[in-house]
Amino acid sequence: MEPVDKIIHAKWIITGESHEPLENHALVIKADKIAAILPEQDAAKKYSAAETEHFPAHAIIPGFINAHTHIAMNYFRGIADDLALMNWLNNHIWPAEKKWVNHEFVYDASLLAMAEMIRCGTTCFNDMYFFLPATAEAAEKAGIRANIGITVLDFPTQWAQNADEYLKRGMDFYTQYKNHSLITPTMAPGHPFTVSDPTFIRIQELAETHDMKINLHLHETADEVNESIKQYKKRPIKRLNDIGLISPRLIAIHMTQLNDEDFDILKEKKPSVVHCPESNMKLASGDCAVEKLKSYGIHVALGTDGAASNNDLDMIGEMRSAALLAKLSNRHPESLPAAKTLELATINGAKVLGLDHLIGSLKAGKAADFAAIHLDEIETQPLYHPISQIVYAASRQQVTDTWVAGKRLMKNRQLLTLDEKEILQKAKEWGGKIKA
Amino acid sequence: MEPVDKIIHAKWIITGESHEPLENHALVIKADKIAAILPEQDAAKKYSAAETEHFPAHAIIPGFINAHTHIAMNYFRGIADDLALMNWLNNHIWPAEKKWVNHEFVYDASLLAMAEMIRCGTTCFNDMYFFLPATAEAAEKAGIRANIGITVLDFPTQWAQNADEYLKRGMDFYTQYKNHSLITPTMAPGHPFTVSDPTFIRIQELAETHDMKINLHLHETADEVNESIKQYKKRPIKRLNDIGLISPRLIAIHMTQLNDEDFDILKEKKPSVVHCPESNMKLASGDCAVEKLKSYGIHVALGTDGAASNNDLDMIGEMRSAALLAKLSNRHPESLPAAKTLELATINGAKVLGLDHLIGSLKAGKAADFAAIHLDEIETQPLYHPISQIVYAASRQQVTDTWVAGKRLMKNRQLLTLDEKEILQKAKEWGGKIKA
Repeated sequence: MEPVDKIIHAKWIITGESHEPLENHALVIKADKIAAILPEQDAAKKYSAAETEHFPAHAIIPGFINAHTHIAMNYFRGIADDLALMNWLNNHIWPAEKKWVNHEFVYDASLLAMAEMIRCGTTCFNDMYFFLPATAEAAEKAGIRANIGITVLDFPTQWAQNADEYLKRGMDFYTQYKNHSLITPTMAPGHPFTVSDPTFIRIQELAETHDMKINLHLHETADEVNESIKQYKKRPIKRLNDIGLISPRLIAIHMTQLNDEDFDILKEKKPSVVHCPESNMKLASGDCAVEKLKSYGIHVALGTDGAASNNDLDMIGEMRSAALLAKLSNRHPESLPAAKTLELATINGAKVLGLDHLIGSLKAGKAADFAAIHLDEIETQPLYHPISQIVYAASRQQVTDTWVAGKRLMKNRQLLTLDEKEILQKAKEWGGKIKA
Repeated sequence: MEPVDKIIHAKWIITGESHEPLENHALVIKADKIAAILPEQDAAKKYSAAETEHFPAHAIIPGFINAHTHIAMNYFRGIADDLALMNWLNNHIWPAEKKWVNHEFVYDASLLAMAEMIRCGTTCFNDMYFFLPATAEAAEKAGIRANIGITVLDFPTQWAQNADEYLKRGMDFYTQYKNHSLITPTMAPGHPFTVSDPTFIRIQELAETHDMKINLHLHETADEVNESIKQYKKRPIKRLNDIGLISPRLIAIHMTQLNDEDFDILKEKKPSVVHCPESNMKLASGDCAVEKLKSYGIHVALGTDGAASNNDLDMIGEMRSAALLAKLSNRHPESLPAAKTLELATINGAKVLGLDHLIGSLKAGKAADFAAIHLDEIETQPLYHPISQIVYAASRQQVTDTWVAGKRLMKNRQLLTLDEKEILQKAKEWGGKIKA
């Protein structure tokens, strides 16, 4: 009998390694890793566990990977809706950020967002914002896995005055967190229109030296493309390709405006892509051609974007939106079926982040990052196919338990690392100040 | 002091009579009606209530009106996904219906659907299916308001063999329920391609004689339109207009395929329309031009369609999908703003059903059909605008209480008229049989 920490029996385990859920299997956990997944009658014979638990009406799934967030924007959720991107940014979001965003704001708002993410089964997110140490401190407190982007812009914000200062602060952050078990620094120039060519080249060099991914909002709107043509005589993808940025190191976010010229570059250079359907719909930006990109061997993940343009961090809702939108956009009901959609939110996220050796699916040796979804509810019975039920019928509130690296962050809807009451109280206090 | 039954104090009351939520007001209920809505300090001076209740962190909203359902199809939720409409109908849904649908099935499945609807704040639905008495019996048990369609087809099902029999059974149902306080019979020919001209004409005559609405799936798919052109040399709207069916009596459901010829007829004849965005996306049918139709003075309501093609009856989720899809389709982020979207799901539903004298908004004299949504949660804080928060951030599980005609159907998430455990048990038993 091999000693382990936990044996978790579940009605279904959806490993992400195959499209068929395993019925009545057990997930065996040792320290922060998955030791085995096996039929439940075999688990008791092979392992002795400090703790055994039963989830007889649940599906265990790989934790969701939210591949594009601005989590501290949770405090701006619903402050300005139903507006065009540049009006929304120029007249609402940027002024609010200028007035309010500081270390304390980012820390408090990040805890709110992490509570929301843990409550929907998200175990890893890929963030771009300011005051990165505040986000990292919050992530350490929450126990959630985080990719944190070193934001670099060529204009001043509360966080830094110019590219030099962004990079200085960012590389200090990198040095502090580069060996952290749960936190991975990345590079994060904002938009093509907020970063100059020389700055992009410096970012690319640093990313190569330190083997970091580069997150960039790219071809999000028609306006962005048109402005680039005016200023650079090139579409943004072409401009960035000419300076060497389009590569598997790049995580290109949104990508709703792609023509044949763009596809030719993408096909050859294979950057990763993050699809944010709800944000792209809400801001009327467009739709990302997920299946076409995938057919070129490009990894496509799913992200919610910030809560100010979504307005939630709900990966179950985001999967549903992605699946429904793909069918409508392609006028093909077989587009993005349920199992492929679940991949976008799990293993594809891991591939995009370069972390698929560690997370994104459930198998022996990978990190024990997973969630339990209760399916024995009015909204998900009768049940014919668990994956269909999760993608097309379940709600985020049916997620009952969330674990990251073998540590439980939520137990039967109760947060274990965060204080829900205190987080709500802080959110109301900040909201009151911001509203006034 | 005027004696009343209940005074309900709430942080916000969203009446639907204006776009500004009333803060710290009270809803006064007498028997099945709203007696008054007034500032809470005035309520205690003017009314003495048998029962007073406080919802200090909730918004009270008009109950949702789900304007297109096939509620008994809840038992087929998730049985076949990611398929084209005709494949889905011919090879999955119709064979399953032929094998399983009977009075008992419809009764049991309807209770499941009603539990789901009450749990998301829906107080009225507009159904089309078979074994209408079973749906009506279930609605009486649940205490929910129901419009129940007299299905008429020119092909045999378990329910009837031919148009004569559908009409005979339907008119018996009409006679039984025509004076019911919560149940309203309507006419419900299925699709243009399942009903002949002579049958449409008989339906129209009966509907006029008895002042019933006529529910019809119309211009749902491009195939439907093309088949009509082949068979009748006319698009379905033109064909139906030529025999007098296109009028304010008609509730035209889906309407995703409209050209200028169609719009000319619609503009003149003003039928009502039900938009079912999630079903239309899932089946890759198309998108309904909600705002263009509204600009012609046409009433447009919101429906989920059956759970087999959605896969839920969640009106909060449906509002979100409608709002996001409108912005993307129109490439305009100001399309279908939050308050207008809430109207689709409430007062517009009442107008489409011809029940806006009674339901759809909260004001003195109207029926006490309403729901409470708890907004003091991680997912909806901070809160700047309650309507935005409901449409763009809240989940159906935040609906805590639902009332129809002054009767409480759910109290703090506990169903009061239905037995949740028994409903779940029955759903599992039926699901097991159907799956085998």
